[in-house]
Amino acid sequence: MIVIMKAGATAAEIGAVIARVEELGLTPHPIYGENHTVIAVVGEAVALEPDVFQVLSGVETVTRIGHQFKLASRQAKAEDTVIAFNGTTIGGRKLVVMAGPCSVESRSQLLETAQAVKEAGARLLRGGAYKPRTSPYAFQGMGLKGLELLAEAREITGLKIVTEVMTPEAVPLVSQYADILQIGARNMQNYGLLNAVGRTQRPVLLKRGMMSTIQELLMSAEYIMSNGNYKVMLCERGIRTFEPMTRNTFDLNAVPLLKQLSHLPVIADPSHGTGRWDLVAPMAKASIACGADGLIIEVHPQPEVAVSDGAQSLKPEKFAQMMRELGPLAEALGREL
Amino acid sequence: MIVIMKAGATAAEIGAVIARVEELGLTPHPIYGENHTVIAVVGEAVALEPDVFQVLSGVETVTRIGHQFKLASRQAKAEDTVIAFNGTTIGGRKLVVMAGPCSVESRSQLLETAQAVKEAGARLLRGGAYKPRTSPYAFQGMGLKGLELLAEAREITGLKIVTEVMTPEAVPLVSQYADILQIGARNMQNYGLLNAVGRTQRPVLLKRGMMSTIQELLMSAEYIMSNGNYKVMLCERGIRTFEPMTRNTFDLNAVPLLKQLSHLPVIADPSHGTGRWDLVAPMAKASIACGADGLIIEVHPQPEVAVSDGAQSLKPEKFAQMMRELGPLAEALGREL
Amino acid sequence: MIVIMKAGATAAEIGAVIARVEELGLTPHPIYGENHTVIAVVGEAVALEPDVFQVLSGVETVTRIGHQFKLASRQAKAEDTVIAFNGTTIGGRKLVVMAGPCSVESRSQLLETAQAVKEAGARLLRGGAYKPRTSPYAFQGMGLKGLELLAEAREITGLKIVTEVMTPEAVPLVSQYADILQIGARNMQNYGLLNAVGRTQRPVLLKRGMMSTIQELLMSAEYIMSNGNYKVMLCERGIRTFEPMTRNTFDLNAVPLLKQLSHLPVIADPSHGTGRWDLVAPMAKASIACGADGLIIEVHPQPEVAVSDGAQSLKPEKFAQMMRELGPLAEALGREL
Amino acid sequence: MIVIMKAGATAAEIGAVIARVEELGLTPHPIYGENHTVIAVVGEAVALEPDVFQVLSGVETVTRIGHQFKLASRQAKAEDTVIAFNGTTIGGRKLVVMAGPCSVESRSQLLETAQAVKEAGARLLRGGAYKPRTSPYAFQGMGLKGLELLAEAREITGLKIVTEVMTPEAVPLVSQYADILQIGARNMQNYGLLNAVGRTQRPVLLKRGMMSTIQELLMSAEYIMSNGNYKVMLCERGIRTFEPMTRNTFDLNAVPLLKQLSHLPVIADPSHGTGRWDLVAPMAKASIACGADGLIIEVHPQPEVAVSDGAQSLKPEKFAQMMRELGPLAEALGREL
Repeated sequence: MIVIMKAGATAAEIGAVIARVEELGLTPHPIYGENHTVIAVVGEAVALEPDVFQVLSGVETVTRIGHQFKLASRQAKAEDTVIAFNGTTIGGRKLVVMAGPCSVESRSQLLETAQAVKEAGARLLRGGAYKPRTSPYAFQGMGLKGLELLAEAREITGLKIVTEVMTPEAVPLVSQYADILQIGARNMQNYGLLNAVGRTQRPVLLKRGMMSTIQELLMSAEYIMSNGNYKVMLCERGIRTFEPMTRNTFDLNAVPLLKQLSHLPVIADPSHGTGRWDLVAPMAKASIACGADGLIIEVHPQPEVAVSDGAQSLKPEKFAQMMRELGPLAEALGREL
Repeated sequence: MIVIMKAGATAAEIGAVIARVEELGLTPHPIYGENHTVIAVVGEAVALEPDVFQVLSGVETVTRIGHQFKLASRQAKAEDTVIAFNGTTIGGRKLVVMAGPCSVESRSQLLETAQAVKEAGARLLRGGAYKPRTSPYAFQGMGLKGLELLAEAREITGLKIVTEVMTPEAVPLVSQYADILQIGARNMQNYGLLNAVGRTQRPVLLKRGMMSTIQELLMSAEYIMSNGNYKVMLCERGIRTFEPMTRNTFDLNAVPLLKQLSHLPVIADPSHGTGRWDLVAPMAKASIACGADGLIIEVHPQPEVAVSDGAQSLKPEKFAQMMRELGPLAEALGREL
Repeated sequence: MIVIMKAGATAAEIGAVIARVEELGLTPHPIYGENHTVIAVVGEAVALEPDVFQVLSGVETVTRIGHQFKLASRQAKAEDTVIAFNGTTIGGRKLVVMAGPCSVESRSQLLETAQAVKEAGARLLRGGAYKPRTSPYAFQGMGLKGLELLAEAREITGLKIVTEVMTPEAVPLVSQYADILQIGARNMQNYGLLNAVGRTQRPVLLKRGMMSTIQELLMSAEYIMSNGNYKVMLCERGIRTFEPMTRNTFDLNAVPLLKQLSHLPVIADPSHGTGRWDLVAPMAKASIACGADGLIIEVHPQPEVAVSDGAQSLKPEKFAQMMRELGPLAEALGREL
Repeated sequence: MIVIMKAGATAAEIGAVIARVEELGLTPHPIYGENHTVIAVVGEAVALEPDVFQVLSGVETVTRIGHQFKLASRQAKAEDTVIAFNGTTIGGRKLVVMAGPCSVESRSQLLETAQAVKEAGARLLRGGAYKPRTSPYAFQGMGLKGLELLAEAREITGLKIVTEVMTPEAVPLVSQYADILQIGARNMQNYGLLNAVGRTQRPVLLKRGMMSTIQELLMSAEYIMSNGNYKVMLCERGIRTFEPMTRNTFDLNAVPLLKQLSHLPVIADPSHGTGRWDLVAPMAKASIACGADGLIIEVHPQPEVAVSDGAQSLKPEKFAQMMRELGPLAEALGREL
């Protein structure tokens, strides 16, 4: 921690900060400037909160030194993590594309989509069986039946399955069906849920909350990893800003930044990142261009009758076209689709 | 819904929207302007999503008519809700103040705080036994022991207890101890949890998420109410913006707006709304001045040794002073403390 | 400045930072922690940018010590500034209310409003003769004719005049008519304009930009003051956030914070802060309750035919009612209306 | 306009809206739903503000039909604008790269940079002679001397010049030296300045304000175009959000969206969009991948001694490397560098 005292802080106030540092078993290094005294605090302090010093009289600001995430950091592991599971891998040179409907709606809808995205080159099928909806009156997902349909689609197509789990108690059930457990944006700081998926060995796709900083996303990954599950993918899916023309503001800066700060694979979600199907293909390309390890894309055979997220879903032929365009792009970037 | 077609939308595109409206059992009213055709959709459509039309070819924007919240709305109930429980009430002319530490840390800390806030005029004691923390390495709360200490403090002081519940499975246990169940900001859209507290009859203090709209806050109240629990208090606690000098931006506009849109009591939290103890008293006054029905305030006997939120906690004497100043203010506003 | 090196920064990188500090004539104080080296930089560095160190290899973050504003700061002047001009004052115990239409539209509109707000207790008349409008096709203000009408209204009612100036070259002309020059939110960082009003001795009402930090507002005040004009009022008028139900999010935290950081008077603008006339009165009360030295309020005799900002304008009778309610509130707060 | 009445609006309130529509010479189309009445307003209403109806009693919301920008819109001109000037072009298949220092600091700094970016493939030299700085105590630019150096660099290298103009009165002078006039982000809504550059025939690079919506950016372009200057480039340079790890959040969604809404060329600025040199190259690639027509990049021979924006400036060799990597990417996208 770096404690910056207010201009005009008294000797007694400075002394109290120093005493508090020592009381916590840490070493204070005061530096006396013309207007401000600064006290650098040396020692192991990862669990320490800036508030401990902020609250003291005469303190202006307190700045943490270094990051609080450890297991998720590049310092902990210099090389990129490649997550291997059920015969496939995520991370490394080879890009991954996960595609499918927002919600599982019916057997025919799911199987038709699965076949189409498989043919176009996707390796995973996405589809929600449990849906977090703003309104209690909206469709909440097919539940167990949806999970069974996903398993059937895997059986038929060979695609692996990624699907959302919303409560700690549902983790065992969803784990029976899913190859990857998805933590949705609204649940990024649902710590009971993070602990629960952390106690499994299923790979986890952790979506950034629409209100969450990059630092907080990494701290949520840290929750999962500190429970023993290191198979975490970080997903940028857009944040909330003042711009009304798009559903979210797709923060692609986060992609190269996360790759710098962490060894975990980074997946981009241009469907939620834009909220508009007509922006999905260009933003999918941008995601790959700035270093994402993969994409998750909403595809629906008839977006106009989708029960959710129709406006941001690609039709299978648009998805196939996008995949064809991604190929040469990936190659130009030294990646492989 | 109002569907606005793009300038230059074709007759076929307009026809397809009209057909889709009819297919959904609703009535289309097309209006043909110079550049744009508009289709007003009449009929019961509360569960309908704008996406259903947004996705159609030639559509520019879709606007919902009216609000999705029903049970929480002023339309459903014109008079203010007064929540009566265990011999006290929240809502109506009489203001309520809930005060206490961020975290329950020890018996002496809690009892000392409880006595102090009781003497100063608080009616409820707040204190976290289960704490949602950004870091898995930070103090996570005393758990059951914390709940027991809260119950003991109630026994001794007569203060009612408000404390946070973080997972659906913890609801029965926390309900045994708490007079009011608090849903924290990070869990405002944890629907499993909202359903769980909705199935109890305990009053619920629902905090606005730090990047949630006023509409979404009311929809989360609707989740609880649609499960049968109508005893919901809405809490403004600050939202996340670009301003770095305060922990949150305290959106007090939400207070009179929520009073207008809903019959539910509105509580303001200037501790989280500012993140700085030196701003708590002025912003508590502002909260009351714009119509809040009560306050929730962090108080700690020694903020400088608090395990969490010390920087925004008032010392008991500062809290007592604030309460003395609130009295004449309440009176000038026609309220009673 | 505090320079925090990355974990694992090399001795050469640390040495380069130290050398650069010395090259700038400042004194480096390195502190060697377990993972991170921190270099505190001591010396006069107000014009120095963090970038100077941020750019060096191995640097993680650079934090400025203290604030860049000097003339505007409480350190420079401990007592509250009271701005005296043309027989009235702003600042200190006595509150000021400025009221009037968004735009000057006609002689009758302006005089009718002026009489009404005068009777209700306003001391200044606001009204725009030059209007910054998002659209080039919208009404741009009456210009010189508007200024003349404002002067006539002053002649008749004795109210002082506050009106916006939009370009440096218009400053001399507007200064001939206005008692207070208003810098609008969009122009808060129009430095040519800030310099121009700084070279006059007219009091300046400086509005916070809709996406400007509190620090930046004070730096813009510093621009004006560093030109020799110390008669600056700071105006909180709402910032831009994700919340769509109000035109802006009224950041009232800024009011007590500005009073703490600066000696300048603080004016609140609940008309723009909310964008809705039905929220103006409660938020005017909140503004006063948290310490504002005055209010600026849009009033129009017929908001439904106003050429601009009708939705946030009070009718004269609503304004008069609000003024009556503010009286006892001011008294309860130890202020005078 | 679409006027949505509140649930329970009276017949008199509905009648008053209808009367007001007719009074304005427009045609009202009321639609009576179960809970809400909706009045669609048909007629030419581009200069009309929603406030005109919003202010009326019983009105819930008012939504504009269509966009207010006309000259800048795709409706006005279907094919992409290609701006030709002084022997070069911007827009169309061929990408443009503008590069150079944030500030012109000295003859040697500028010429060295100019040579380097020229060799690497840039077609324009950027460099600020007049600098908008948050602090009045910071370097404000070399002024006229800076312009002369830019002209000399053009003479020597053949690079065209883009440089910022900050006040209306400086437009004639800057136009003598610059090939493209840059409007900085802080001045995007400085209407006096927009009018002034609109009255020239110099191409204008219009930067999006850090607080401005995409709609507002297009309205500012409309200001310039409505004065007769159609040579406008739109520049996405990052917006302000809650994320603290980057200087701005680079809103690349804006790139394909602007290409859809407007015929004007779109330039991306990854230097300001990220604020970190180590993110510039990946985000430059992302910009091209989602459809930008060009880039503007800060390059400095010694970022560690730059007077401004060092932290986001590339060294010439890093810039050259980025340009080499952009080549194959452009080709894979069907563009040419």
